[in-house]
Parts: sequence; C-alpha cells; structure tokens
Amino acid sequence: MKKIINDPSNILDEMLNGLVFAYEELVERLPETSVIHRKVEQSGKVGLVSGGGSGHEPSHAGFVGKGMLSAAVCGEVFTSPTPDQILEGIKASDEGKGVFLIIKNYSGDVMNFDMAKELAEMEDIKVDYVIVNDDIAVEDSTYTAGKRGIAGTVLVHKILGAAAEKGLSLEEIKLLADKLIPAVKSLGVALNPATVPEVGKPGFELEADEIEFGVGIHGEPGYRREKLQPSAALAQELVNKLKKEFQWQSGDSFAILINGMGATPLMEQFIFMNDVKQLLGDEGLTLAFRKVGDYMTSIDMEGLSLTLVKLEDSNWLEYLNAPVTTIAW
Amino acid sequence: MKKIINDPSNILDEMLNGLVFAYEELVERLPETSVIHRKVEQSGKVGLVSGGGSGHEPSHAGFVGKGMLSAAVCGEVFTSPTPDQILEGIKASDEGKGVFLIIKNYSGDVMNFDMAKELAEMEDIKVDYVIVNDDIAVEDSTYTAGKRGIAGTVLVHKILGAAAEKGLSLEEIKLLADKLIPAVKSLGVALNPATVPEVGKPGFELEADEIEFGVGIHGEPGYRREKLQPSAALAQELVNKLKKEFQWQSGDSFAILINGMGATPLMEQFIFMNDVKQLLGDEGLTLAFRKVGDYMTSIDMEGLSLTLVKLEDSNWLEYLNAPVTTIAW
Repeated sequence: MKKIINDPSNILDEMLNGLVFAYEELVERLPETSVIHRKVEQSGKVGLVSGGGSGHEPSHAGFVGKGMLSAAVCGEVFTSPTPDQILEGIKASDEGKGVFLIIKNYSGDVMNFDMAKELAEMEDIKVDYVIVNDDIAVEDSTYTAGKRGIAGTVLVHKILGAAAEKGLSLEEIKLLADKLIPAVKSLGVALNPATVPEVGKPGFELEADEIEFGVGIHGEPGYRREKLQPSAALAQELVNKLKKEFQWQSGDSFAILINGMGATPLMEQFIFMNDVKQLLGDEGLTLAFRKVGDYMTSIDMEGLSLTLVKLEDSNWLEYLNAPVTTIAW
Repeated sequence: MKKIINDPSNILDEMLNGLVFAYEELVERLPETSVIHRKVEQSGKVGLVSGGGSGHEPSHAGFVGKGMLSAAVCGEVFTSPTPDQILEGIKASDEGKGVFLIIKNYSGDVMNFDMAKELAEMEDIKVDYVIVNDDIAVEDSTYTAGKRGIAGTVLVHKILGAAAEKGLSLEEIKLLADKLIPAVKSLGVALNPATVPEVGKPGFELEADEIEFGVGIHGEPGYRREKLQPSAALAQELVNKLKKEFQWQSGDSFAILINGMGATPLMEQFIFMNDVKQLLGDEGLTLAFRKVGDYMTSIDMEGLSLTLVKLEDSNWLEYLNAPVTTIAW
C-alpha cells in the first residue's frame, strides 16, 4: 500500500482537519464531532443533512455550503457514521423549519440515519428523509437491500439544496425528493480496485487486462467481468443498460454526470464523455445539464460511473444551474 | 496500460470535444484548432493566453473563463503546441489591448510561444509574456534550461487573470508578472509514475516501497529517492526545501496550493494539508489563501506538489479571491 497518510486509524480526523483548514471560510467542524457544517448563512430554511462513510471525497463535505448541504456527517472510511454524530448534524442544521436527510442506500446508513431521526424527533425537530438508490447494476448487494446509492446522490444534493435555498417547506422537499429519486440512475465500471488504508490491500482483484461492470463504491461485486475494451465500447455498455431502465424517447431531456472513481484522470473522463455524447445524441436525447469530474469517489479506485437524471420537471434544471458556495460543486 | 481511451493517437481531439461538450456555456473550441477559448465576454481587456502539452488536466483549459484565461492552447500529450496554434489563440484573445502569454518553462513551449509572439506582432498585435519557473527541485532538466514550471502556474493564471479582468494594461500586467514569478515556488513528490498513452508504459520506475522527491510533471527526474514514509515526513521534506528558498520570517503571509498529480485521492491531499498546516504554523506563517485538489496533473501519476506564493502585495490576495467563471478553479 503506497499512500500519503500517517496512522491509518487516524485518517478521518486528519482529513477533516485538513479540509476545514483549507476551506475555513466555507465550513466548520462541529467540536468533538465528525460533522462538517456550513458557515455561510442559511436563516429560516429547511436544513439538508447527508453523509456516510468516508473515502468518497469530495462527497459529502465538499458539497456543504449555500445552495447545497447544511451538514455532512462523516464516518470512518467505508463505515456509516453513528446515530449520535448524525443527531449532532441534524441539531446544528435545524432552524425551526425542520431537517431533510439524504441517505445513500446502505443498510448501516439507513439504520443509523433512521435512529438519528427518531432521536431528533424526541427533541421536537421535524425530520424527513429520502433514500438514494440510483445504481442500476444489481439488486441487493454486500451492504444493501435493494439498489445501492452512488454518484447520483450528488445531483440529489444539488437539486434538493437549491429547493431548500429557495425556501421550500419540509413537506414540499419530501414530495420533490420522492419524485426525483426514480428519475436518477447510474452505472459504473471499474478498472482497478480501491485499497482501504486500514486493510492495506485491494478490496478485490482484477487481471491486468480485465474490467468489471457495475462495481459498487465500496468495491461491492458488479454484474460482469470482461477484457479491457475501448472507451466507446464501455460507453455503449453503460448506455444500453441505462436505456433499458429509463425506456427513454427521442426528445427526452436529461442531466448527465460522468464521475471519476478517484484515480481516473480527467483526460479519460472527457474522452468517455465524448463517446457518451455520440451515443445519446444518436438516441435523440437532449443533455441539458452536464458535468465531468471526481464527485463520488471510491478512495483510489480506477474507473468511472455514468449518471443520468430524466428532467421531468423544468424546475430541476433551474435547481441544477442555481449558484452555490461549496468546496467541490 | 489500463485506460479509458480509444485510439491513443486521437486522445487530444476526443478529450477536447468531450470537454467542450460538457461545458459549452463556458468555452468553445476554435474551429480546426486545439485552442479552447472563453465564451463569456471580455470586452476591452488584455487577453491572457496559456497552454502547453496535454496530460495536465484540468490545466489549462479548465481555467479558461471570466477572471482567468482568455484561451488555452492544447498540445498533444506532453508535447508543446505549435506556433500556428498559439497564434490562433492570441488572435482570438486580442481585443485591441494586447495579449499576455503565460508560459511554463519547457524549451519547446518557450520556443513555440516566442515564435507565435513574433507572428502576432507581424499582425500588429501587442504581445508580452512571462515564463513560470516555480519548481525548486532541480536546475536544468530533461526538457528545460533553468527551473521547470509546474502547479504554481495555476496561481499565476488566477492572479494575472484577476488583474486583466480589473482592466490593467499590458504593461501593468507585465510588471505584476515579473514581480510575482520569483514569489511562486513549488516542489513535488511522486509515489508512482505516469503512463503516456501513446508510449503504453510508465515513464520511469519506482520500487513498491519507494518514492521520489522533485519529480517533474512529465516524469523528469527529481533530486532524491527514499523509502515510503508517513505524510508528516513528506511534508517536512518539502517544507524544509521551500523554507531554504524563501528565507521566510515569522509573520510572513502566503498562499498555498496542495496539488494532486492525477491518481492521488483527495483523502491523501487533505491529510497532507493537515501536516503542512502544522509545520507552517510552527514557522509562524499566515496562510491567507488555501486550495487543495487536482489542478496541474501528470496524467495518472501518483503524488502531489506543494506550492507557496509569498504575498508581497496586498492586491495579490484580492486577486486570488476574486470571483471567476471557469470549469475547474
């Protein structure tokens, strides 16, 4: 394992301190917690809280700020944060209008966020939530019942964040979220696995000329291994799967996110975008919003994911384009 | 070589098309060229043009936009753009106030930008330039006489970009640049080499437990190899070298950039920032501007660089904090 770290057991603490120091105008770490909270004002709005295991940087702390999240609760690497930490994030984000939780669909996250919700309600804070399950690769997985939540979560942060900033109520945000989630779908491909620092070796193995479609962001198994192939062929595979799920029509409008997994250069992500553009153009789709880069990583995994959001409501595009003040959007 | 690409000889074209498609509101590709030009208006200002070989994404196209570069001229991977391409970038960026070139110190870049300057002057465009040589690792190198230009270049883009946006004249920008360059110093460390797609194998070799201090952004040799060591020890080495060059005093104010080389997760970059923060705090320095992330990469190299800018003029901090509209700042 070749990493720029100190004690593997101290990664979360050192990483959060480095992050907060670098961006102290934007975020603060709540004392004695692993909660990153926004400094820029948010008076009288619904609070938006997300989080999960670390190792997905810039998710989620990089999306804390005006127009996106109120707080990100950061667990140890690939480990859910505990309910007491999530509760701290909720309490710090409540301004009397309630708090909305965005939870990626992993059993540990779902359980701990749900417990935190109950604890917060006992303190008379209104809480509602949505579970993101955008990964169409597999049904049920190592840490998940149903479908996993991956990079599409960042677009959910953005859309709901803009809605909260606009002043929507907790009930309105819940309605929006429930309509949005089925319209967000993602699929990834891994070229090489990630190494969790405390484990010290890769989470799975791939041959030198082998790739795996549908790998999860914690290295959970995907749906098929094949020989390495050109970008255009990888794009074709991911687009075909997404087409089957969306059942789209020519003329439909989408947002697209090409997301690097942590060790994949932008060079490759832009080439992949060029291939996807061709394929979706041939399908007659409009890509009204586009983004490329590392948004939901898997430590040092090589690979990328493709997320599409079917823009069923014209507000969604407005929300995606609304200005934000965050580290990483 | 495991990369998400198609034909290695077609990388530049496909990458630029993917980039422009993703960010078509911000940038355009000048027809029949490898010049990325800004779409957001710039009337009556000095044009700012940079560029160089590709493989350093998001540099330089990611910094084209309001408040930074007018155009980035993109060569093939690790290869200088030709004078005719640079001339196109200059012509498209001139609004009657002249064009300022920001050149990283590589012999090919210096020669080709200089030839383009002469060609532009023959067309009655006023052109001036600065050569960035921030890498303190070595004197003279594989492709460079003197010191190499690396990640500090991005901060030069930002400071000069804000100055141009403010309306400074070509002469004023030249004076500012000449004062700024000696105040920008960087140093890197590599954990693993980059692979140029057309070559197909890594540019150099490191043992599984070995690192190299001072490697250049094209894999040029550094100044020493050692065994892998903790982040805090790496930070100490880079800070010691920079201290010797700057001869700083307690109370001095600096801007800092921690720059990932392409395959180094943000997790590691933030941990490294935490270590550097401790060391520079002990020195009594003020870090008035801070940034962490992938800004000047080396394809898929693992490692990072540390850049410091001594803020000798209070305007420089204002310029660093000025708003921009770019893909990647």
